[in-house]
Amino acid sequence: MEKIISSPRGTSDILPEEVLGWQFVEKAARRQFLYYGYREIRTPLFEETELFARSVGQTSDIVQKQMLNLAAQGAGSDADDMKNSLLSLRPEGTASIVRSYIQNNLDKKERLSKWFYIGPMFRGERPQKGRLRQFHQIGVEAIGPDSGSPYLDAEVIGLSVCILRESGVDDFNLKLNTLGTLEDKENFSKYLRSVLSSRLDALCPDCRNRYERNVFRVLDCKNKSCKEVVKDLQLDYSYLSETSRNYYESVKAALDSLGIVYQEDPRLVRGLDYYTHTVFELSCSRLGSQDALGAGGRYNHLVKELGGPDVGAIGFALGMERMLLAKAEDATLKSSPVQVYVVALDEKFFPRAFQLLQFLRKKEISADINFSSSGLKSQMRQANKSGAGFVAMIGEEEFIQGKVTLKNMADGSQEQILLDEAEKIIKIVKEPESPRAREFEKL
Amino acid sequence: MEKIISSPRGTSDILPEEVLGWQFVEKAARRQFLYYGYREIRTPLFEETELFARSVGQTSDIVQKQMLNLAAQGAGSDADDMKNSLLSLRPEGTASIVRSYIQNNLDKKERLSKWFYIGPMFRGERPQKGRLRQFHQIGVEAIGPDSGSPYLDAEVIGLSVCILRESGVDDFNLKLNTLGTLEDKENFSKYLRSVLSSRLDALCPDCRNRYERNVFRVLDCKNKSCKEVVKDLQLDYSYLSETSRNYYESVKAALDSLGIVYQEDPRLVRGLDYYTHTVFELSCSRLGSQDALGAGGRYNHLVKELGGPDVGAIGFALGMERMLLAKAEDATLKSSPVQVYVVALDEKFFPRAFQLLQFLRKKEISADINFSSSGLKSQMRQANKSGAGFVAMIGEEEFIQGKVTLKNMADGSQEQILLDEAEKIIKIVKEPESPRAREFEKL
Repeated sequence: MEKIISSPRGTSDILPEEVLGWQFVEKAARRQFLYYGYREIRTPLFEETELFARSVGQTSDIVQKQMLNLAAQGAGSDADDMKNSLLSLRPEGTASIVRSYIQNNLDKKERLSKWFYIGPMFRGERPQKGRLRQFHQIGVEAIGPDSGSPYLDAEVIGLSVCILRESGVDDFNLKLNTLGTLEDKENFSKYLRSVLSSRLDALCPDCRNRYERNVFRVLDCKNKSCKEVVKDLQLDYSYLSETSRNYYESVKAALDSLGIVYQEDPRLVRGLDYYTHTVFELSCSRLGSQDALGAGGRYNHLVKELGGPDVGAIGFALGMERMLLAKAEDATLKSSPVQVYVVALDEKFFPRAFQLLQFLRKKEISADINFSSSGLKSQMRQANKSGAGFVAMIGEEEFIQGKVTLKNMADGSQEQILLDEAEKIIKIVKEPESPRAREFEKL
Repeated sequence: MEKIISSPRGTSDILPEEVLGWQFVEKAARRQFLYYGYREIRTPLFEETELFARSVGQTSDIVQKQMLNLAAQGAGSDADDMKNSLLSLRPEGTASIVRSYIQNNLDKKERLSKWFYIGPMFRGERPQKGRLRQFHQIGVEAIGPDSGSPYLDAEVIGLSVCILRESGVDDFNLKLNTLGTLEDKENFSKYLRSVLSSRLDALCPDCRNRYERNVFRVLDCKNKSCKEVVKDLQLDYSYLSETSRNYYESVKAALDSLGIVYQEDPRLVRGLDYYTHTVFELSCSRLGSQDALGAGGRYNHLVKELGGPDVGAIGFALGMERMLLAKAEDATLKSSPVQVYVVALDEKFFPRAFQLLQFLRKKEISADINFSSSGLKSQMRQANKSGAGFVAMIGEEEFIQGKVTLKNMADGSQEQILLDEAEKIIKIVKEPESPRAREFEKL
């Protein structure tokens, strides 16, 4: 017996029964994207490592500790050119999308690009519940010359809330904060250093390092003693310019006008370098220590910093694994049973049954058959188990007369139908009166 | 100005206009999977490298030259454990799915697992038209104790044909062959060596090597002189056992009964080690030298070879990039215009316009707004460009009277509606008489 190979650590298989939950969330999100005018974009799953260093931040944990890099295999590989470039699997979605926006000159084509993506991200983290090495996000980015309105912040935040609700996640908190402009951020970091200077001893070694290099990260630290220090901080918005303060007030007023409930949290900074102004986070206390459902914010300088035009942007990403853990159990698609299960009562009737099967499928009826030649009882058991609304049987009598017996599994009634008039079957199966048929239509 | 980073060689961005073509193909395939009773499975995008060496084949070009391996970044990385395992991005879909079938003990749960997948694959190939380093496949695998029927071969082949047609690919050829059992394959390789022995000089160095190690690969070689040699070979099915020959005849009879046209090609072997019995290939001459749309076949021993139960299987994969190159141009989704474009004729009316916008979206109307405060003319131009069926305007008069003016862009008619009776707007916009509304419903 050969060694059995398992799925890699920090990944998981999504089997068909589970996929239904994923499809439910994806469909809910896609519906909202349609209503909100966001269009799908698909970028490659790997990029030059430099892109992430320059966007997510060279000093971030993601770039320092969690990048998964690519290498072409062996000497004389067909991809020898890859040895001269450092490539990484994307750890998040924004960097690739901004890269694509710049590369495709989108600022010359439209005033505001409203985009969404759904797909896998990769980080070499220590795996734990709700935190995998391959995980999945639903995200949006709104980028362009016309992106400067505080109402766009409210639209984007409202959309994230709406997707959670439509996905069956009802129990969550929205936290809101502003970082202001780059200048305000600089003042904020000076201010933070001053309020933290007396507590340096209580910080972890990583945070003492962060204190100098990127003091905001101290606010995100998961270390217990750092968390204590952060909790005790009395922060105010004294570092904000008047313009930034007004912008923030407009965002809040727009959120209020939509009836969106949020909590202000001056400690909310998010672990990515590129945010300015509005930042927000969605969390669910039910999830325990990994409680973030998603987060987002404005990044008005990232496009320019990556060599593109001077246009602003705002976006968010929701973690699909977390959403699936947080959503109500009944908020999922039901497994769709086949509509007709075809049964040949003997191997010699199988060719005819097989043709009927294909006929039904061509007519947009979902249908299946038992490929093994087992007995009637075993086949009827399988038909029952399949949840099919109807069973179409061909036995000796039917074979001779060129007929099929169609049994309605809901009420047990059955009738014989000439195969020459097989269109009749379609009519019966698609009959809206049938409860199974109605269930099928809803999918 | 910063250096601009491009997408990595051999990858491409799929922008929103292009995504519509992809969605069309995916929807067409998903519909057929529903009718045929195949259910979605999602496996990780990377696996232990050993899995591919043991399934695709240690001597294959894919494993020898085209694997993209993963490495965790830096010392003290959170994924230090990855340094002890060799991981690769998946170059194809079957290996992961068989691994998942075994790991999840599916043979104990169902007699036949009919699965499909849609997603990216990765190979470090030299990029060329229709051949990328990240490419995308739609595939199915039918695995299990009840998979041994020749009718299943016909179903799987028929499904691949059906997906091509429904995706708008009409112009393709189906080639069919059988390799027989492992023993037949052994005889076939002896037979091939004997007919090739006199032509060794005409083969490329790679093929002279293959002649010893894996002679089937000579039949696949793209080298011109090798192709000449292969074309001249007179092959027959003398190496097949009677049982294998009967099985093949049954597959052909079942295909005939479905009216599926195929060409037999005794030279068709496919570049993967694991095939037995039926193999098939779909190609489109319009595509030029990279003419394969997809391929598949039986692999009755792979599950056991990877340490699982002794159950058979058959599957195929279609290349999505190739399908998109081969499909008819009109076979794509139309870009969906928003239904209502909201216009505020002055910045001070914007808050009310914004609330109307959110109201419409909540009522499942797709709606958008211009976030920049430009003049009426510019806004109406944008509304027109958006293709919206209706424009909802709020100006001075409307603002004072608590109204909105709704303009039907198809006939230019307009009416004023009280915001207190905004449900009226929903009725008008969803009115099935409206041609725009009808277009929207079809999506």
